[in-house]
Amino acid sequence: MTELDVRTLQQRLAAFAAARDWGQYHTPKNLASALSVEAAELMEIFQWLTPEQSARVMEDPGTAPRVADEVADVLAYLLQFCEVLGIDALAALAAKIDRNEGRFPVSEPTDPLFRHSSE
Amino acid sequence: MTELDVRTLQQRLAAFAAARDWGQYHTPKNLASALSVEAAELMEIFQWLTPEQSARVMEDPGTAPRVADEVADVLAYLLQFCEVLGIDALAALAAKIDRNEGRFPVSEPTDPLFRHSSE
Amino acid sequence: MTELDVRTLQQRLAAFAAARDWGQYHTPKNLASALSVEAAELMEIFQWLTPEQSARVMEDPGTAPRVADEVADVLAYLLQFCEVLGIDALAALAAKIDRNEGRFPVSEPTDPLFRHSSE
Amino acid sequence: MTELDVRTLQQRLAAFAAARDWGQYHTPKNLASALSVEAAELMEIFQWLTPEQSARVMEDPGTAPRVADEVADVLAYLLQFCEVLGIDALAALAAKIDRNEGRFPVSEPTDPLFRHSSE
Repeated sequence: MTELDVRTLQQRLAAFAAARDWGQYHTPKNLASALSVEAAELMEIFQWLTPEQSARVMEDPGTAPRVADEVADVLAYLLQFCEVLGIDALAALAAKIDRNEGRFPVSEPTDPLFRHSSE
Repeated sequence: MTELDVRTLQQRLAAFAAARDWGQYHTPKNLASALSVEAAELMEIFQWLTPEQSARVMEDPGTAPRVADEVADVLAYLLQFCEVLGIDALAALAAKIDRNEGRFPVSEPTDPLFRHSSE
Repeated sequence: MTELDVRTLQQRLAAFAAARDWGQYHTPKNLASALSVEAAELMEIFQWLTPEQSARVMEDPGTAPRVADEVADVLAYLLQFCEVLGIDALAALAAKIDRNEGRFPVSEPTDPLFRHSSE
Repeated sequence: MTELDVRTLQQRLAAFAAARDWGQYHTPKNLASALSVEAAELMEIFQWLTPEQSARVMEDPGTAPRVADEVADVLAYLLQFCEVLGIDALAALAAKIDRNEGRFPVSEPTDPLFRHSSE
């Protein structure tokens, strides 16, 4: 489906912002800040939940659409950030997975605390 | 290109985590937290820059790959979060853009402070 | 004034949470997450503002109380986090300033990007 | 002890920044962003830990000083933010506790999800 292609969504977001003259607000600095705010709003849904409760959020009819909505906000600002800086997010991720496959061999168990600091 | 398809990247990330037995750490709560940390790391690159400097970060050969790398980290955790909860991020974003086109008519100028609170 | 002493505020927060049986939610992990959410909410107020507009937020009667309120939330979770882990936040900050005075000599101009990464 | 007074620490931070000519970077917008980054760095320490592991971080000699250090960074940026905007953080928190005592009566059990959204 055309509409669910990253490139198409990115173009719809760019057209949406341009039509409202929001380009003046959409510096990379501001978009990175907005992305961080939306990521925090997603996290907020989980902040008092146990790990087990967090795994069941989509079963709650009040919470499920809030989660999907915050996911949409995070992705929207990530794609707009990439648009203004000319970054191909999918290519950047593919390159990162390639690198990580070399850095975290399956044969060596990894301590998750160590993992993060070297990621 | 197959490798740059969201679904393919999501499957590579899932296989990567499964091979290292990281599934135990990948609760939705923890992944939302990791996503928020990576978004903050992306923002950190911009925190002391002026709006004008922020628009030129990709011209600096030391900074450009850091930006792309943090974008990859944000997208990686967003896709892993969506994977464990069965959320289609692209569909969620398409639905959100549809809704926002109704909520922010082009003809009514929008104050950006107002915009955010009702978004 | 007694009420504006950090130790007193910390004790009021602890009593407040205990009276409502919120201790079960107040793991260090959850409180660190809540702190991060509140810091993002503070930042959100500024996200579309220019540097100049950001310097004048307290002149706006609608915005000033929101800023003070988010500051209170950040401090509340920071103090509750320190309470459950037995950390003296003021002593930690005094020690950090002492260290930074050695690491960032006044005589050597510091690039702010460099500053952060080594802070 | 004089050194562990909030006002004194705030003045030391202001003198430290002034001596290095960092005032130009310390807009409220940038300081709120830096605060958010430091809060995320504190959270990062906990991101893969279980609730139980998170309660024992100060027992680990490698982790304890990192936690204290990030607490210092969060408090440092919070106090610098308050300094540039003329906000009394302790008074703001005392006022917030007063208000919350009215809004969350001890007699009515509070759902933590509800709690947050109305906080």
